[in-house]
Amino acid sequence: MGLVSPQTLRCEQPLALASGRQLPAYELVFETYGQLNAGKSNAVLICHALSGSHHAAGYYSADDPKPGWWDHYIGPGKPIDTNHFFVVSPNNIGGCHGSTGPRSINPASGRPWGADFPALRVRDWVETQRFLADHLGIAQWAAVIGASLGGMQAMRWSLEYPDRLRHCVVIASAMKLTAQNIAFNETARQAILSDPDFHAGSYMAHDTYPKKGLSVARMIGHITYLSDDGMGQKFGRELRSGTFARGTDEPVEFEVESYLRYQGDVFSRQFDANTYMLMTRALDYFDLAREYGHDPVTAFSHARCRFLVLSFTTDWRFSPARSREIVDALIGANRAVSYAEIDSSFGHDAFLIPNARYRQLFHRYMLNAAGEAP
Amino acid sequence: MGLVSPQTLRCEQPLALASGRQLPAYELVFETYGQLNAGKSNAVLICHALSGSHHAAGYYSADDPKPGWWDHYIGPGKPIDTNHFFVVSPNNIGGCHGSTGPRSINPASGRPWGADFPALRVRDWVETQRFLADHLGIAQWAAVIGASLGGMQAMRWSLEYPDRLRHCVVIASAMKLTAQNIAFNETARQAILSDPDFHAGSYMAHDTYPKKGLSVARMIGHITYLSDDGMGQKFGRELRSGTFARGTDEPVEFEVESYLRYQGDVFSRQFDANTYMLMTRALDYFDLAREYGHDPVTAFSHARCRFLVLSFTTDWRFSPARSREIVDALIGANRAVSYAEIDSSFGHDAFLIPNARYRQLFHRYMLNAAGEAP
Repeated sequence: MGLVSPQTLRCEQPLALASGRQLPAYELVFETYGQLNAGKSNAVLICHALSGSHHAAGYYSADDPKPGWWDHYIGPGKPIDTNHFFVVSPNNIGGCHGSTGPRSINPASGRPWGADFPALRVRDWVETQRFLADHLGIAQWAAVIGASLGGMQAMRWSLEYPDRLRHCVVIASAMKLTAQNIAFNETARQAILSDPDFHAGSYMAHDTYPKKGLSVARMIGHITYLSDDGMGQKFGRELRSGTFARGTDEPVEFEVESYLRYQGDVFSRQFDANTYMLMTRALDYFDLAREYGHDPVTAFSHARCRFLVLSFTTDWRFSPARSREIVDALIGANRAVSYAEIDSSFGHDAFLIPNARYRQLFHRYMLNAAGEAP
Repeated sequence: MGLVSPQTLRCEQPLALASGRQLPAYELVFETYGQLNAGKSNAVLICHALSGSHHAAGYYSADDPKPGWWDHYIGPGKPIDTNHFFVVSPNNIGGCHGSTGPRSINPASGRPWGADFPALRVRDWVETQRFLADHLGIAQWAAVIGASLGGMQAMRWSLEYPDRLRHCVVIASAMKLTAQNIAFNETARQAILSDPDFHAGSYMAHDTYPKKGLSVARMIGHITYLSDDGMGQKFGRELRSGTFARGTDEPVEFEVESYLRYQGDVFSRQFDANTYMLMTRALDYFDLAREYGHDPVTAFSHARCRFLVLSFTTDWRFSPARSREIVDALIGANRAVSYAEIDSSFGHDAFLIPNARYRQLFHRYMLNAAGEAP
């Protein structure tokens, strides 16, 4: 994508949240890639996942060491092909990368929201994204695309604004989390809550942050984004230091331990703990069919778009079984759905990683979508 | 088993550990069930896992609310049938249930060992169990039996003292941990290390203990001992409190969250954090074939006993694939091995839980073992 830069949209109207609370005003930071055509019919919305941001593709400067998080899949000649599409990628509110979130000032108190930031549901993000679409003059997205928590937003779009998208691409996602998934999220939250530097979410007022708790939370998450086999291939039982020689008391450190601690450490310095709490709760609470009598077929009968559903064989956090449930419900609701289960050893993270079949299928599907008359 | 009571054996000879350090003296707490026969040929050794103890069966008093951890499988008419066997169940050193461990007094300092307790390997436990066998006059165990970390001890017995056991029963175990397993253990250790009340392991001197860290560590472990399906069947997305009704800001709590926190809380009050660190490191470091040129077939060619290997379909912490590796190596080494993969939805915890096929197979195997002339 070359060089990109973020923009900011401010909404001065209060946002009525699913919780019944209101956000008095908010800012959305977003990036766009490619050109919006004259008919404004070639726009694609990217919905990000837990730790993502608006920076999905391209570089911020010539010496920027790494591109946006989905750069393998967004750009000229890539699956989300900027030769054809105008790509819109916002940072969700409640996040910590520029859009209004727990680090922003609460106008009522003049201090950062912290843990008082209102609880959010996936549908609240859809509302802010709809506001962004209106602002950009996009009456209908060519596609709404998301992986993981982003896939939940894409599915919610298909039910809330069925006429405002032609395609819904749902990657490595689920209609609701399993008990195991909730359990991992809760354990990560407990790690944060247990850190004395969390200060019940008011750590900014104490000029600190829950570094250790957030680091352990990320370590838990990180293990679940990888696969057992993938970790075996990458690290095995290789040692970083020490020896197992008999008669030595030298501490042994495995490569995988060092890697995980490093990942936790980096994340804890870059991410906001209140955002982590809020986003994992939004994940836990999401249940696509809850208000459709808990019937996914009834839910999807409200959709009008076509669907592409993708999953990855070794993803155990959002396993292929969860994607097959989506597909079954779409078939039951007589919606057009294409499904592929992609071979990958990279677990849930596979959606970010280059993979020939994934790239090819995704690219062809999107090219066909680009060729359609709106 | 009815009422049981523990005994204590003191070893005054120094124990030379695999690390090269020495434990100057130590105590082993153990229980026995059933009667040792005249030929002392009917003794069975139970090796416990991470959070187990010597209290494997029976009750301590008439109003004891629960029996030992393996009471479903040890007793008259049960798989480890005390009508036939004399069962010996020690608490491993380094533990926190009576045998010498981090809470014991270090004679050199007059204070509790704490984090200075020497690092242990599985083979060190085998040495203390061999000392116990000598003390009891047991020249050869009818069987050495263990699940999980206990299975590692049983396998090590078969290589270190091949003539001192006739059967080796290895349940839900592995010849070495995978990178993912090490990663979970390391994350649990980091949760403990992150707790300011850990005081680098000297929490007893500060009259406290790392309650929150140990609780998070247990929550991580607990999720991995259950299966995704099992948790789904037990908890699903049932709520303990709160509601998802639109327009309410009431906090929602899932049953699975409340359950896990309770489990973590109970464990943190009953278990010792230094023991947790030490036991998980012993798990990580175990590698059956390391000193046999990393060749499991070469390793098992030193064994003389017969083997029963059992695994459980939904166990993903010690998956059936790990048990099949044991079986393949035993076949390669021309050892007699029986293997069964038991259908269960209970994950790794299945080895503790009543299951008809598991009970029947295990019982028949052990009855045949009891009928053999030593």
